[in-house]
Amino acid sequence: MKQNLLRTMVAMLTAVATCALSSAQLTKNVNPLIGTGRIEGALRGCNYPGATVPFGLVQLSPDTREAPNWDCTSGYAYEDERVYGFSHTHLSGTGATDLMDILLLPVSQERRVATIDHGREQAYPGYYSVHLTDDDIQAELTATPRTGVHRYTYAQGKPQCVYLDLDHSAVKGDWGRRIERAQLRIVDAQTVEGFRIITGWAPLRKVCFSIRFSRPITAYSGWNDGRSFGVKGLNVKRLKSEDEGANAFTANGTDIKVTLTFEPDGRQLEARVGISAVSMENARLNREREADGKTFDQLRQEANDQWEETLAGIQARFATQTEATVFYTALYHAMQQPGVFNDVNGQYMRADYNIGIAREGHPHYTMFSIWDTYRAAHALYDLLQPQRAGDMVMSMIDHAEHYGYLPIWELWGEDNYCMIGNHAVSILVEAICKGVPDIDEQRAWRAIRQTLSTPHRDSPWPLWEQLGYMPENQQTQSVSITLEDSYDAWCAARLAERLGLADEKEHFDKLSHNYRNLYNPETGLFQPKDDLGKWLPGFDALRYGANGGSAYTEGNAWQWRWSVQHDVDDLIALSGGKERFVQMLDFFFTCRDTSGEKNDNASGFIGLYAHGNEPSHHVSFLYTLAGQPQKTDQLVDHIRRTMYNAEVSGYIGNDDCGEMSAWYVFAALGLYPLNPASAQYVLFAPSVTEATLPLPNGKNVHILSKRQGRNAIFVKNIRWNGQKLNAPMLSHQQLMEGGTLLFELTSNPKGKLLPTGGK
Amino acid sequence: MKQNLLRTMVAMLTAVATCALSSAQLTKNVNPLIGTGRIEGALRGCNYPGATVPFGLVQLSPDTREAPNWDCTSGYAYEDERVYGFSHTHLSGTGATDLMDILLLPVSQERRVATIDHGREQAYPGYYSVHLTDDDIQAELTATPRTGVHRYTYAQGKPQCVYLDLDHSAVKGDWGRRIERAQLRIVDAQTVEGFRIITGWAPLRKVCFSIRFSRPITAYSGWNDGRSFGVKGLNVKRLKSEDEGANAFTANGTDIKVTLTFEPDGRQLEARVGISAVSMENARLNREREADGKTFDQLRQEANDQWEETLAGIQARFATQTEATVFYTALYHAMQQPGVFNDVNGQYMRADYNIGIAREGHPHYTMFSIWDTYRAAHALYDLLQPQRAGDMVMSMIDHAEHYGYLPIWELWGEDNYCMIGNHAVSILVEAICKGVPDIDEQRAWRAIRQTLSTPHRDSPWPLWEQLGYMPENQQTQSVSITLEDSYDAWCAARLAERLGLADEKEHFDKLSHNYRNLYNPETGLFQPKDDLGKWLPGFDALRYGANGGSAYTEGNAWQWRWSVQHDVDDLIALSGGKERFVQMLDFFFTCRDTSGEKNDNASGFIGLYAHGNEPSHHVSFLYTLAGQPQKTDQLVDHIRRTMYNAEVSGYIGNDDCGEMSAWYVFAALGLYPLNPASAQYVLFAPSVTEATLPLPNGKNVHILSKRQGRNAIFVKNIRWNGQKLNAPMLSHQQLMEGGTLLFELTSNPKGKLLPTGGK
Repeated sequence: MKQNLLRTMVAMLTAVATCALSSAQLTKNVNPLIGTGRIEGALRGCNYPGATVPFGLVQLSPDTREAPNWDCTSGYAYEDERVYGFSHTHLSGTGATDLMDILLLPVSQERRVATIDHGREQAYPGYYSVHLTDDDIQAELTATPRTGVHRYTYAQGKPQCVYLDLDHSAVKGDWGRRIERAQLRIVDAQTVEGFRIITGWAPLRKVCFSIRFSRPITAYSGWNDGRSFGVKGLNVKRLKSEDEGANAFTANGTDIKVTLTFEPDGRQLEARVGISAVSMENARLNREREADGKTFDQLRQEANDQWEETLAGIQARFATQTEATVFYTALYHAMQQPGVFNDVNGQYMRADYNIGIAREGHPHYTMFSIWDTYRAAHALYDLLQPQRAGDMVMSMIDHAEHYGYLPIWELWGEDNYCMIGNHAVSILVEAICKGVPDIDEQRAWRAIRQTLSTPHRDSPWPLWEQLGYMPENQQTQSVSITLEDSYDAWCAARLAERLGLADEKEHFDKLSHNYRNLYNPETGLFQPKDDLGKWLPGFDALRYGANGGSAYTEGNAWQWRWSVQHDVDDLIALSGGKERFVQMLDFFFTCRDTSGEKNDNASGFIGLYAHGNEPSHHVSFLYTLAGQPQKTDQLVDHIRRTMYNAEVSGYIGNDDCGEMSAWYVFAALGLYPLNPASAQYVLFAPSVTEATLPLPNGKNVHILSKRQGRNAIFVKNIRWNGQKLNAPMLSHQQLMEGGTLLFELTSNPKGKLLPTGGK
Repeated sequence: MKQNLLRTMVAMLTAVATCALSSAQLTKNVNPLIGTGRIEGALRGCNYPGATVPFGLVQLSPDTREAPNWDCTSGYAYEDERVYGFSHTHLSGTGATDLMDILLLPVSQERRVATIDHGREQAYPGYYSVHLTDDDIQAELTATPRTGVHRYTYAQGKPQCVYLDLDHSAVKGDWGRRIERAQLRIVDAQTVEGFRIITGWAPLRKVCFSIRFSRPITAYSGWNDGRSFGVKGLNVKRLKSEDEGANAFTANGTDIKVTLTFEPDGRQLEARVGISAVSMENARLNREREADGKTFDQLRQEANDQWEETLAGIQARFATQTEATVFYTALYHAMQQPGVFNDVNGQYMRADYNIGIAREGHPHYTMFSIWDTYRAAHALYDLLQPQRAGDMVMSMIDHAEHYGYLPIWELWGEDNYCMIGNHAVSILVEAICKGVPDIDEQRAWRAIRQTLSTPHRDSPWPLWEQLGYMPENQQTQSVSITLEDSYDAWCAARLAERLGLADEKEHFDKLSHNYRNLYNPETGLFQPKDDLGKWLPGFDALRYGANGGSAYTEGNAWQWRWSVQHDVDDLIALSGGKERFVQMLDFFFTCRDTSGEKNDNASGFIGLYAHGNEPSHHVSFLYTLAGQPQKTDQLVDHIRRTMYNAEVSGYIGNDDCGEMSAWYVFAALGLYPLNPASAQYVLFAPSVTEATLPLPNGKNVHILSKRQGRNAIFVKNIRWNGQKLNAPMLSHQQLMEGGTLLFELTSNPKGKLLPTGGK
């Protein structure tokens, strides 16, 4: 009875809070320029500032490099003062670069690059604007899921032209990148369509587009594989398409660029660009269904509204606006991808390059940076966007059914095999165990079983099953892969168990402990062996590996020492018990020895801990499981305050499709999915003052922190619906039932802390 | 009355002849090995000996080189004594090479090449068989339009394996050839499917396959991008696919090869390989619909029957079996392509890489070697296969509607731009003027209009219209292109005239005389100018050009001097009248000056005439139009006898998708489409004794030659339905009305001959 009363009160409180917060315009807290600037000693966040909607196919954003590369994977570097144009697809925060399709630049003369004025640059969710100073043009961008919308305001009396470049891309040659075929069609006086087929990080992409301009073309001049073409002073009638197939002009080649001149009539010109991976017809359909009959301002408002609704999944208050900005920008970055891949008619490019059809109401998704996002980003989707999360899982299963196994890094329908492990397995099992809707568990199991038995790149299963580990002389990155494959095996065992497949459960449970076979008790570290079972000589605990040629992936033996997310108890036992385990953690977070060549991805150091890259992301929470939660609180507080900020330098390393962001969101809320597929959260001191999560199931979760003073960063007590928790853990299932999570925080830690300045 | 009686008699005669001839098994006259051997001083015919049906997508043939190239474009060189396997797609007679997809080789051990015994090799229309001596295996091949059918007989007691290579192709690197993606799926114990996407001469091809083996796989071992995979001693149950998507094994990569081992049970193993440019599902459907429920022998019989029916389009008698063999093999080679491109469900890959749907009963065709085949091959299709000819034309129009202009050289749905001109225009106009059925004349006109106004590779129309010729300093091969574009303009004018478009007719008629602007009366030759109208210095009438860098394409100024097919009267006038024209022709056919670097494509010389390449093909017939038909008779007889034979060296140069063959077929019948789009034939002395053409419209054409002695190679009189013809010309329309074409031949020419030994 008492409890019921409490619940009712909480529900009322929540309702009030929701109301109060949703009128607060959460999008005002988002600054898309965060993560776009240079950082000392680390890779930049590599976010893009352009216009996009939540989980959209289009990311319409400025490219400040002619052929962007590793340093600027999103195409935009804040320190740059020139823009090559606005292209329609971008990656957010990745280490490698790709996409950047169909580039438009408004100009008043033949020009392929324009100076920009950052003082006249605005970036909001779903809207971007910048001033091009050379020709005095203001460019504004907004987007729908599959359509980029441009509005250009030209200087009075100046020619109104648009430079359209089908050749623009990330640097050619990398990943064998080249344009195989491209087509440009001037369909009629206001419509330009085409496609390009390009190789690169995504092995082979077809990108089709359909552009509708708000006014007629009166001249065009361009280059097709070095041959010029063009018509001046066009009779607009000549550019009228009477019938299907009667295009005014068509160019086929590999390097096509054109400058289009428009009939001057007022100063503003709009371009609406539908894109599709399937066909120009679909690109046109996408544009018409999504953008027709609406003004630029209406579309901008709709994009903003979608972000408002998406961000309202967490209605949070912080002590400072800076924290709110960092938090909501992180949430914004996390919700930018994966993107819907199917066209409005359901068609999408399947993993075998045939056309698939998405089920009505169930989008097919693309852009899965799985090695990163299996850690926290998918946990966030499961929590806040379960319908989408289920469709993401089914998209991965569809991929497996036409590809033979689940994706490693899915980009534009195909796998680029970036990074290691097969953590789609984790994402599937996590979603199923969390009750995410509309997942076919039998198909999920089959996809998992095939993934973990079909040998593929970096997954030589016969060796794995025969030796019980990956031998470095036959499979490089062997220690990292052994650790990660052990985790995936554990995930598979959980689904087998759930489905009552006893033999399969036993098989995968056995494999889930394979990491033990590479543990060297003498060093307390996981070390590489050859295929005869001998330790590899010349071991250096501090030497970094990259992505091959070393047993460790983008890290060293110490950073990989903690990667047993699925059986921390066993890791503690293996380490010699809790005390020894904590000593090793203390060493890890305080070691000042920086010998050994670093890997670029490792940054954001606290001792050897590197928050700038994913293998470290769960390590601070291990203290809590080892009985020293105050050190988790201490570290998480430190990371939140020093590794994130509200400036263009906002992330201490690549955001990696929102994974760094998702970490922050959870870290601010006081819960973290240390072992995602366990459907459990570790609890610790949040930074949020108060947060309401109006769950899609109609329930609400209310998170409150009661702070004893400003420096109260340590957990004293945690109460779930009024009841004090014995252990700082909460299951996803509990959360889904709704309730209030109350953190009582103190400035007096219960035990010893790490020495400050450990960084 | 008298005429009617004659017609009746002719019809009766024809009926008898038809009957007599059709029981003669015309396929027995075909030797597919003709054109596969080496020739002194010329490119080989480059035909392939494998199994195919008329106008099929599959050409299942042995590849005797690991990575075939220019010397052996069909994959097979008769002098080779090894075979790398049997792949499913080949080009017949082309100068460049491509295709050769999905290679199978039966083996009894790990082996990637096998010795063949030409003594145990058989090649018939629709059937090929060869003995592989190392493992003592007989391989037999037959085909349906979209399915290759293999039957392998292994040695008693030896392992029964098949090596399957998805990497096999023409030499990598040429035309940027590389495999972008490939997939191999072992779907179940008897089914293997997959695809590859490869660049090359065809810019980008997707080739999907579905193989059904007659017995279960018991082991497999292979390589995927250098990583080995495999399973020995398979439990067949494990290879049973229970559900869609549950493949036993899948490999994705770029270089995939596998050796499959089969359950031994009898000595014969069959493999049926459906292919598709769209999807594996379609490849499977093609295989099932075309081959299921039929034995190898039934399919072989069906393939033979289709050839029998196709060859029966001309029921001809010759004085010698050699002539019959050369003739029917030529007809066979001409009817091997273009090939049906759509799958059994109608889907095909469109020119913009989207999926099109062929109309029911109207196949979509591919493989148009237009610069070659517009001359005589399409005239042959119009005459013998008008239904297919109409669908070919509509396929080209469909191409234009998704590509912006008609194809130059269409290969696997896209253009490789090989050679010059836009002679699809000629093919369309010719077919329309000949009354070929099911052609939309409005769509044809639009395609032609766009083709001749949209600038594209080697077709810079603004220059053309501005200058009245192509200037060599801006467009190389300018003389050849000017000549050929003039012809195409004439063709366009004829359709404009037919459609009542007076302005368009005038426009194109004017352009059709642009060749005059490059005629130099001082040399009597067409010579290059620059864009200021000045003759280029350093002119050498005998120097050969290749495919760029010279004003002449694969020839010299003399060879290109005759390329005004559409206005021979004007060419004669330009030359200074008939007498001077004949003098120049005489010089051309007797000149012994061979200075100047040759082009490989030029061979089969009679003076400067080079029968081995297409620009010469119409020249011998010009004598007839200049009033000296006896020289045409003399030359054509010489060419028929010396440039063709019934051996593997059968052609004096590349057959070029049946164009050399089509020339021979017409040459043997005594008629040639000098100006194809005029729908007129030049008549001359045939080599055939008697021929009946049972036209698809139900009428019959009967060709008879009455010879005065063995050396009667000169026309004395020609009668059409009994009436003596005043001029040696007959229109296609006349032919279509049916009747008897009687050649009275004499050994006494009416005028002077060329000196013998002119070659």
